[in-house]
Amino acid sequence: MPYNKSDTLSNQTPNTKPSHEMWGGRFTESPDLVMQAINASVSYDKRLWRHDIEGSKAHAIMLEACKIISKQDLQDILFGLEQITREIEIGEFVFKPSLEDVHMNIESRLKEIIGEPAGRLHTARSRNDQVATDTRLWLRDATDNTIGLIISLQKMLLSKAQEYVDAVMPGFTHLQTAQPVTFGHHLMAYYEMLERDKNRFIDSRKRLNECPLGAAALAGTPYPTDRFTTSDLLGFASPMRNSLDAVSSRDFALEFMANAAICVGHLSRFAEEIVIWMTPQFNFITLSDKWTTGSSIMPQKKNPDAAELIRAKTGRMNGNLISLLTVLKGLPLAYSKDMQEDKEPLFDTVDNLELVLTAFLGMLTDLKAQKENMLKAANSGFAVATDLADWLVQNLNIPFREAHHITGALVKLAEDKQLTLPQLSLTDMQQICGEITKAVYAVITPEYSVNSRQSYGGTAVECVKQQIAERKLSLSQ
Amino acid sequence: MPYNKSDTLSNQTPNTKPSHEMWGGRFTESPDLVMQAINASVSYDKRLWRHDIEGSKAHAIMLEACKIISKQDLQDILFGLEQITREIEIGEFVFKPSLEDVHMNIESRLKEIIGEPAGRLHTARSRNDQVATDTRLWLRDATDNTIGLIISLQKMLLSKAQEYVDAVMPGFTHLQTAQPVTFGHHLMAYYEMLERDKNRFIDSRKRLNECPLGAAALAGTPYPTDRFTTSDLLGFASPMRNSLDAVSSRDFALEFMANAAICVGHLSRFAEEIVIWMTPQFNFITLSDKWTTGSSIMPQKKNPDAAELIRAKTGRMNGNLISLLTVLKGLPLAYSKDMQEDKEPLFDTVDNLELVLTAFLGMLTDLKAQKENMLKAANSGFAVATDLADWLVQNLNIPFREAHHITGALVKLAEDKQLTLPQLSLTDMQQICGEITKAVYAVITPEYSVNSRQSYGGTAVECVKQQIAERKLSLSQ
Amino acid sequence: MPYNKSDTLSNQTPNTKPSHEMWGGRFTESPDLVMQAINASVSYDKRLWRHDIEGSKAHAIMLEACKIISKQDLQDILFGLEQITREIEIGEFVFKPSLEDVHMNIESRLKEIIGEPAGRLHTARSRNDQVATDTRLWLRDATDNTIGLIISLQKMLLSKAQEYVDAVMPGFTHLQTAQPVTFGHHLMAYYEMLERDKNRFIDSRKRLNECPLGAAALAGTPYPTDRFTTSDLLGFASPMRNSLDAVSSRDFALEFMANAAICVGHLSRFAEEIVIWMTPQFNFITLSDKWTTGSSIMPQKKNPDAAELIRAKTGRMNGNLISLLTVLKGLPLAYSKDMQEDKEPLFDTVDNLELVLTAFLGMLTDLKAQKENMLKAANSGFAVATDLADWLVQNLNIPFREAHHITGALVKLAEDKQLTLPQLSLTDMQQICGEITKAVYAVITPEYSVNSRQSYGGTAVECVKQQIAERKLSLSQ
Amino acid sequence: MPYNKSDTLSNQTPNTKPSHEMWGGRFTESPDLVMQAINASVSYDKRLWRHDIEGSKAHAIMLEACKIISKQDLQDILFGLEQITREIEIGEFVFKPSLEDVHMNIESRLKEIIGEPAGRLHTARSRNDQVATDTRLWLRDATDNTIGLIISLQKMLLSKAQEYVDAVMPGFTHLQTAQPVTFGHHLMAYYEMLERDKNRFIDSRKRLNECPLGAAALAGTPYPTDRFTTSDLLGFASPMRNSLDAVSSRDFALEFMANAAICVGHLSRFAEEIVIWMTPQFNFITLSDKWTTGSSIMPQKKNPDAAELIRAKTGRMNGNLISLLTVLKGLPLAYSKDMQEDKEPLFDTVDNLELVLTAFLGMLTDLKAQKENMLKAANSGFAVATDLADWLVQNLNIPFREAHHITGALVKLAEDKQLTLPQLSLTDMQQICGEITKAVYAVITPEYSVNSRQSYGGTAVECVKQQIAERKLSLSQ
Repeated sequence: MPYNKSDTLSNQTPNTKPSHEMWGGRFTESPDLVMQAINASVSYDKRLWRHDIEGSKAHAIMLEACKIISKQDLQDILFGLEQITREIEIGEFVFKPSLEDVHMNIESRLKEIIGEPAGRLHTARSRNDQVATDTRLWLRDATDNTIGLIISLQKMLLSKAQEYVDAVMPGFTHLQTAQPVTFGHHLMAYYEMLERDKNRFIDSRKRLNECPLGAAALAGTPYPTDRFTTSDLLGFASPMRNSLDAVSSRDFALEFMANAAICVGHLSRFAEEIVIWMTPQFNFITLSDKWTTGSSIMPQKKNPDAAELIRAKTGRMNGNLISLLTVLKGLPLAYSKDMQEDKEPLFDTVDNLELVLTAFLGMLTDLKAQKENMLKAANSGFAVATDLADWLVQNLNIPFREAHHITGALVKLAEDKQLTLPQLSLTDMQQICGEITKAVYAVITPEYSVNSRQSYGGTAVECVKQQIAERKLSLSQ
Repeated sequence: MPYNKSDTLSNQTPNTKPSHEMWGGRFTESPDLVMQAINASVSYDKRLWRHDIEGSKAHAIMLEACKIISKQDLQDILFGLEQITREIEIGEFVFKPSLEDVHMNIESRLKEIIGEPAGRLHTARSRNDQVATDTRLWLRDATDNTIGLIISLQKMLLSKAQEYVDAVMPGFTHLQTAQPVTFGHHLMAYYEMLERDKNRFIDSRKRLNECPLGAAALAGTPYPTDRFTTSDLLGFASPMRNSLDAVSSRDFALEFMANAAICVGHLSRFAEEIVIWMTPQFNFITLSDKWTTGSSIMPQKKNPDAAELIRAKTGRMNGNLISLLTVLKGLPLAYSKDMQEDKEPLFDTVDNLELVLTAFLGMLTDLKAQKENMLKAANSGFAVATDLADWLVQNLNIPFREAHHITGALVKLAEDKQLTLPQLSLTDMQQICGEITKAVYAVITPEYSVNSRQSYGGTAVECVKQQIAERKLSLSQ
Repeated sequence: MPYNKSDTLSNQTPNTKPSHEMWGGRFTESPDLVMQAINASVSYDKRLWRHDIEGSKAHAIMLEACKIISKQDLQDILFGLEQITREIEIGEFVFKPSLEDVHMNIESRLKEIIGEPAGRLHTARSRNDQVATDTRLWLRDATDNTIGLIISLQKMLLSKAQEYVDAVMPGFTHLQTAQPVTFGHHLMAYYEMLERDKNRFIDSRKRLNECPLGAAALAGTPYPTDRFTTSDLLGFASPMRNSLDAVSSRDFALEFMANAAICVGHLSRFAEEIVIWMTPQFNFITLSDKWTTGSSIMPQKKNPDAAELIRAKTGRMNGNLISLLTVLKGLPLAYSKDMQEDKEPLFDTVDNLELVLTAFLGMLTDLKAQKENMLKAANSGFAVATDLADWLVQNLNIPFREAHHITGALVKLAEDKQLTLPQLSLTDMQQICGEITKAVYAVITPEYSVNSRQSYGGTAVECVKQQIAERKLSLSQ
Repeated sequence: MPYNKSDTLSNQTPNTKPSHEMWGGRFTESPDLVMQAINASVSYDKRLWRHDIEGSKAHAIMLEACKIISKQDLQDILFGLEQITREIEIGEFVFKPSLEDVHMNIESRLKEIIGEPAGRLHTARSRNDQVATDTRLWLRDATDNTIGLIISLQKMLLSKAQEYVDAVMPGFTHLQTAQPVTFGHHLMAYYEMLERDKNRFIDSRKRLNECPLGAAALAGTPYPTDRFTTSDLLGFASPMRNSLDAVSSRDFALEFMANAAICVGHLSRFAEEIVIWMTPQFNFITLSDKWTTGSSIMPQKKNPDAAELIRAKTGRMNGNLISLLTVLKGLPLAYSKDMQEDKEPLFDTVDNLELVLTAFLGMLTDLKAQKENMLKAANSGFAVATDLADWLVQNLNIPFREAHHITGALVKLAEDKQLTLPQLSLTDMQQICGEITKAVYAVITPEYSVNSRQSYGGTAVECVKQQIAERKLSLSQ
């Protein structure tokens, strides 16, 4: 039976000799230094160390439970892995490029510590399923962290939306003044986008949460393993069903990266608004010194650097996604070395997504609306023109098309006189349309406009308050 | 009350005059022809016509239910929309670029047919929420179609996997012979990838299935609409909660496009394998003439054009995704004209995804494995070297490391003699390792190797049969 | 000799039967409709027709010159191709998908018109070198057109820069007011970007201007052709030197697409500025009605749609580039069907680049600066703070660091009083720094600031005038 | 005059306090740690240190030549910069994140070493033009290195092409056997691609080789600088003509990255071929152990890891290009913080391009063709079918179409008999076409086929020899 003598497998463990040594008698030359440079991954995959050890522990426990290794072997392996954990945590562990990757580095050290039993740990697995497992475990943690950060950002949006639930500002389309809205309503739009972003991560987490460990090199293993045990120990929902798929697929990484690109895309829109709102021309918001920088040359500068950097991070989110999509194009099954190029773009996306979400949270926390400037802008720019046209239709029985023309003419008149619509005198208005009465002035204020829009999802203060309340409730559940 | 006189809104309807005419008195010049070329979208958005009409009907029914328009208006509108449907279906409807987009074309024609009530249809909506609604409805249908096509492909994979459940072939890593697997097992790997692809579309469908209609231009509407009714009529799960978000967001399109890029990426791997397997050097499969082409110059050619084109479609899937991600980067809320650039990449992705899935289904249906060639290849290339090494470990009590070396030496010897491992004589073997017995020959066959790998998800015939059975069951549910 | 009997090659011409018929006896089934849908390219490659005919004429002339075909054959072929040209020009030519591509459609029609000699046209060439030649010829024309459009845009920039050479506006960094510049200077920055863009197209044109025709399917031809003659007739610099490269490479398309992405990227920056400058908050420029649109709902709107669309076109420029880069990744030599996917992204990039350049020219022509608003903005926002700090350093012998602090304090004081720096009274200034004299007021005006910056490339009016003059001269050469 | 008192500018130098301290009195809070994390660039831009110092030296020399600083100041500055150079070279220099970037780190250290004159170095420049200059200088070196590596690769291709100038192999289209070519010819196709790649870098170098230094923050400077001197000292062709363009543009980086993406795309095709040629099924080439890796599990494996990694590097080349294209989309002039995101993708592209070119050179050096296997493959797969058809046309006066059919039938017969075409007996052939004579056997050999293709650029041995000779000559010039 294949597993009866598994204890004789101990020499399978790598050592620290040049890596070709590991592959036995067919290789006679040392790898070229350039080959090492292009081949070694430990400089970046070492950050998987904790999940690599976690996976090894679970694998060892399973091997023992299936009687593939002895109790003593298991004890030794767990002891050794604990020691390596401590060594890495306190910075005493030396990762060696000559050992190629994090897996070999840890396995090699394990052998130094516990000797022969270290070799038996690699029974019924290979680096192919091991790296897939490590990356999934690592990304699962990153996903949970991402979801937590999004929730924090959503909470802050709720808090700010409540604070500014009745702060009237111009709503824009085409960056032209369109109709008045409230700043609270505007903030809640981002809440909704983040809600979908969050749910995308929750969904992608389901798909990544399956266990490749035990698929071995590509075909499964002759050892009588129990992959359900390993899967359970590692908190996976189940083992992956096909060993070729288990070692060949990286769609779990792609999906995370696509979600991240979409999410940062949303935040880039908010960041762009912050940049525009911070101009002296708009002056809609202020940010504290924490989230802006000055200039060593220009003493007056208060630059929204954090917002600009968040906006710019879309670049690498899109780039990283394209990078891995390109790598995987047309790769035959099963593992190819190309797939080693999955980690750097994934890590970069995860790191920068965390940075973006954290920075955004801080920036938003400090953001203060200049309510009076917002209101002033809502009063100018003819934001209430729609309301005026509506009034004409509803009170003078004028067809909308004509009302639209009349309003256009009133806007032009006001423009020429450098007045807002409410500043036009009744006489002026009546020059354009004799039937207008002073009653019109009641509806052509931003506040009236805002509160008239009470349709579900509309900007009326009561509507937004209700949305905030409902979202608060759902967040707290 | 704003809605009492909604019948006076009739002139809001566009006509066929140059489009600036629609916007009233402030515009004095005609749009430049170049402006029209860059601005008009009807050449491509006309394919939304059916969903535009569907949305208009639901909106009209809701308006009547809310007493914003009269029963007669509703009847007229439904009549007119039915007539337009017929006109378009029989090809008599003329879409005019001067009317910019599908919405204006239909609305304008509606006015020609039913006159004044046509204008009242646009009450409490704008083109901003209208186009968002149309696109979601259209993409929901496309998503359902996609899911159906994936299921068809999965069924064919199950059928082929069953047919080839015991067809032994070399499993590859790095495109080098690794360990024997079965073709059925290989096919089931793609089943699993498609299962995740399908679930991604199911998840993205949830998120797109919310109704933006009634968000109006950006701020909601003063009319006493009931957005839940519209949402129900159109089969949406609920109306979107924030009017700014409703008209500004396109993540539903991005998510579909990301899913499509990942899915076609999977199929590009299969397509690459088909191209390689079709070479005279591999000769693992044949495709019928339906899915290959010849050459007008070279009489012997049988080119796997369909597989090549499927592989190449990854280009536009990735490109379209990047295109829309780029467009949306840093766009301030709410609607900006930039967002008009969402449709062509989305349509192209949907069309080509459908083409890829359909072509793949056809190609797979006709695919025949050259089982004897596969088996021959599994016998060569030293696919059973791992099994030999395992035998040394398990039967001669040799440490794996040494067994690995011995096997390496045996491989080299066989290579030099241009033999496979099982073709090496016992004498030859014993030259390298004197303790080897003839018992070794029993385990170094591809069939033995395959059937030894009985771990969950492994390539043993029984394992794959079980997977097929379980998947058949879950597909039929 | 292989070419003595070339006249017997006439049956090589395709006809209109289902395309597998063309490939002879090994194919027994008809291509599936889906296969036709994924395989046929004539729906888009028909736009190459003129260059296809141009290439065929040159090829025929060369064949006759090399005595591979007869004079009569040549006459017949040229006659037939002329007739096809007329048929296409007047819209009477029917392109048939069953004939796959533009080449087969034209060749098939040629045979209908002139019979047997049509077949001899395909001697010593194949569709592989033919399509490469057509695409290069087509793109060469597109490149020339692009260069011409860029020059037109540069001329307009020179004209506008001259008009606004002394129009003072705030220069921005981080979209915060930085230092005063002139609008003319700002416009000339785009002149420089376009200059490099233009030169990139001039350089890429050199590389595409080599002739693949005559490389035949992949290996060259046994016929005694003279590829230099063909190359000369088609205006190419030389024939390509390697037949495999000639039919396999598409870097000429990639380079054009990369150039286009960079160029539209530059224009997207200008477009973004136009969108921002058009806001009521900035109000730096006006555009005529030709390049803006209104709203059917909001009578006051004047939306910068053209600028938004130009900005958005970066999406497809980037997407198309990625699309073809992805397609070509990892393709073995020589021609693979994947390469058929080169055309749609290339055509889309060319079309949209032309549209963007043309629309930009029109928009720029109509653009009017609101000089007084620009100047007002330059007076606010503390644009002259650097000049004030410099004055402190230079006149009061205060170290820059301290001067920077003093200026910061003065800015804060002015901010609190809602004044500009020049509006601060001397008393106020002296509260912060007692040594300030009224002489400071002379330097803290935007005009003074601008004209002090006389370093090469600086914004001083004289500097910009000189740049305009030099660029005018170089453009006219 | 602004520059008379430039010596008082000394305090402009940053120190090591938290960075907001540098910006003076308007800032009261410390930057948040997250802000520092997202804002500081020194972790990656420190690699610009040598070019930063080079730029500073040139700037100082110019300032002295223009009498803006004193001779003594210049001496001190040069001394200090030399010392910093040594400190960095021996690893004693500590880069501090609190000082944000490489420029501030060096400037701060300079002040520690030489005191007051350090401050005067920053006269008439800013970080905006400084970083643009550093990056251009750095990339110019990288470009030169790239060009050198491409030439080395071209030389190796020439050498290998000469070695294999008559090694016959099957030429492929669609990865199906098409017509025989020589391996030398195949290699020379890549020479041609690299020739264009090289010329692209030569052209992009011209465009980047203009000097932004002295453009100052954005508007130029009031100091009487001589930008031509600085430009000359740094080896630039000329100063950039527009100060806004000088600090805002990054197309020089984009162009390099586009060139790199195209170049690695070419090499990815070669890499894919190596992977395929290394399979036991093809067995066309061998690579030394230096450029392959084994498996710790499978003793027979010899994986083409280097080729796979080169192929995979297209991912990051495409991704990095998209990243920066996305960052720059729609950025208003002049400098925005977004532009700080230019460096990491640029550095990554440069590093990996160098790695790819170096690894490819090494791999190619060691590559050995299995000439007999190549020839055997050329003999199978019906590579000479075209030649047979041509023979029928030319010798039996059969129309090509019919000859194509006959050949197709002969191919089918040979396929059924599992023979090559030359292995078919004359009797067999005459069953299909009675007129065939034994003379046909002379032309249906791969060698005959290859040498018949003597058209310019064709695969005939003499043609390829001539191409090699000409390219050798041009490389040596």
